[in-house]
Amino acid sequence: MNMQYTPPQVWTWDSDNGGEFASINRPTAGATHETTLPEGEHPLQLYSLATPNGVKVTIMLEELLQLGISGAEYDAWLIRIGEGQQFSSGFVEINPNSKIPALLDKSSDQPVRVFESGSILLYLAEKFSAFIPQQSAARTEVLNWLFWQMGSAPYVGGGFGHFYNYAPEKFEYPINRFTMETKRQLDVLERQLASHPYIAGNEYTIADIAIWPWYGALVRNELYNAAEFLSVSDYPHLRDWAERIAQRPAVIRGRRVNRVWGDEALQLPERHSAEDFA
Amino acid sequence: MNMQYTPPQVWTWDSDNGGEFASINRPTAGATHETTLPEGEHPLQLYSLATPNGVKVTIMLEELLQLGISGAEYDAWLIRIGEGQQFSSGFVEINPNSKIPALLDKSSDQPVRVFESGSILLYLAEKFSAFIPQQSAARTEVLNWLFWQMGSAPYVGGGFGHFYNYAPEKFEYPINRFTMETKRQLDVLERQLASHPYIAGNEYTIADIAIWPWYGALVRNELYNAAEFLSVSDYPHLRDWAERIAQRPAVIRGRRVNRVWGDEALQLPERHSAEDFA
Repeated sequence: MNMQYTPPQVWTWDSDNGGEFASINRPTAGATHETTLPEGEHPLQLYSLATPNGVKVTIMLEELLQLGISGAEYDAWLIRIGEGQQFSSGFVEINPNSKIPALLDKSSDQPVRVFESGSILLYLAEKFSAFIPQQSAARTEVLNWLFWQMGSAPYVGGGFGHFYNYAPEKFEYPINRFTMETKRQLDVLERQLASHPYIAGNEYTIADIAIWPWYGALVRNELYNAAEFLSVSDYPHLRDWAERIAQRPAVIRGRRVNRVWGDEALQLPERHSAEDFA
Repeated sequence: MNMQYTPPQVWTWDSDNGGEFASINRPTAGATHETTLPEGEHPLQLYSLATPNGVKVTIMLEELLQLGISGAEYDAWLIRIGEGQQFSSGFVEINPNSKIPALLDKSSDQPVRVFESGSILLYLAEKFSAFIPQQSAARTEVLNWLFWQMGSAPYVGGGFGHFYNYAPEKFEYPINRFTMETKRQLDVLERQLASHPYIAGNEYTIADIAIWPWYGALVRNELYNAAEFLSVSDYPHLRDWAERIAQRPAVIRGRRVNRVWGDEALQLPERHSAEDFA
């Protein structure tokens, strides 16, 4: 890093910049190549990868199936973001933002595209009337926390995780900045869970499903290997909640879908039926 | 910045770190002092400041009033975040995340707290059946973009804006990282607006209301003075959309509420009735 750096009048792209994910980060949007997406038999077609945002949706779908809601049967197709598959014309048609997860619902005459993990969770919760309360005040509290997760996790993923883990050098100022914010967020959750069994109250909802893959993973040392650095022992109620959720059968299944790293016995690159888990 | 920096085993807080907003950034949550919030006569009590996230909500409320929906009458109270008013016990009760905007709806027996600007926009849209379509596919597209804004703008505000504008030094790597992402997001919007008059289609919705205060401000050079740096002439459809929205009477009013900087004639620190704008 150049200590004397002065930003230019007009920024220009140097594609060497970017750390581990340089190859998939660009200053432009849109498709880079023409490819259609595969489609299976089920009404719900998911295009994803088992990152924290991807896992939110596969956990949700497995939770719905666990309740016996057969309409939630889905095909989960693998999108290899390291290979740029999110920039295909077919993917961009479903998500113009080129990020996983993206969902296509073919159950009505006009297929519906759903993108952004929070939007997908809310869509599925409303479609199947599950994991979101009907009563207005309780529903609002779930949505408060769902939006909280969406607006907060970029500081964890795009901030802390990037600078602690992926950036080409350890830059002190950004690490301090994003560590402070990550710890503040963990403390927000700790205080909430000190007086509520689940994030938005007494029920397990899409708020938990959204928050667990990021913050549960941090305190269980499954993300960025940062549990010690973040002193996660400061957050006992959050850790207890994270362990309780980790044991849910649908969570165990959902985490395996579109997973192509780690323990091979836990990988399920594509999912097309319940039997795929066997 | 220390070129040889190695993160410690366990992070500890040095409160000198943090740039312009160091005094209000902390690694912990919760109230720092006991203060109750003021309450006015209207059912809707807003606690906010005219930042981009704050302005989303005052624009929405003024748009509702512009439609003649009198139930949207509101008291807007100023929260001076530079003075730590978001850490009062009263504020934390409404928003445990200590961020503006926060809304209290006293219209039913049990007051409802609403926090996160996206959650507030959706709450108001559903409460008054306005600025969100009833039809499921169209509604889903609005929510896709509402969640997109919530998950994307942290890279603009907490990333680009911080490192380009507020950080104590100009750090090259983070500026490049977050500029690239900000330009990518601007291009996502440009491509969408090249074929749609409004973000989610033919109608002005909460997706526009959420996106305009951030991305409209960037291309109109009202945020971070970065229009030249970001080459906003690359985004003509986005600029056209931004200008169209800037001219809406409700937008002009909404931007003034809880504003305590810039042109004094445009400041309205508190808003309690339509006459306050006179």
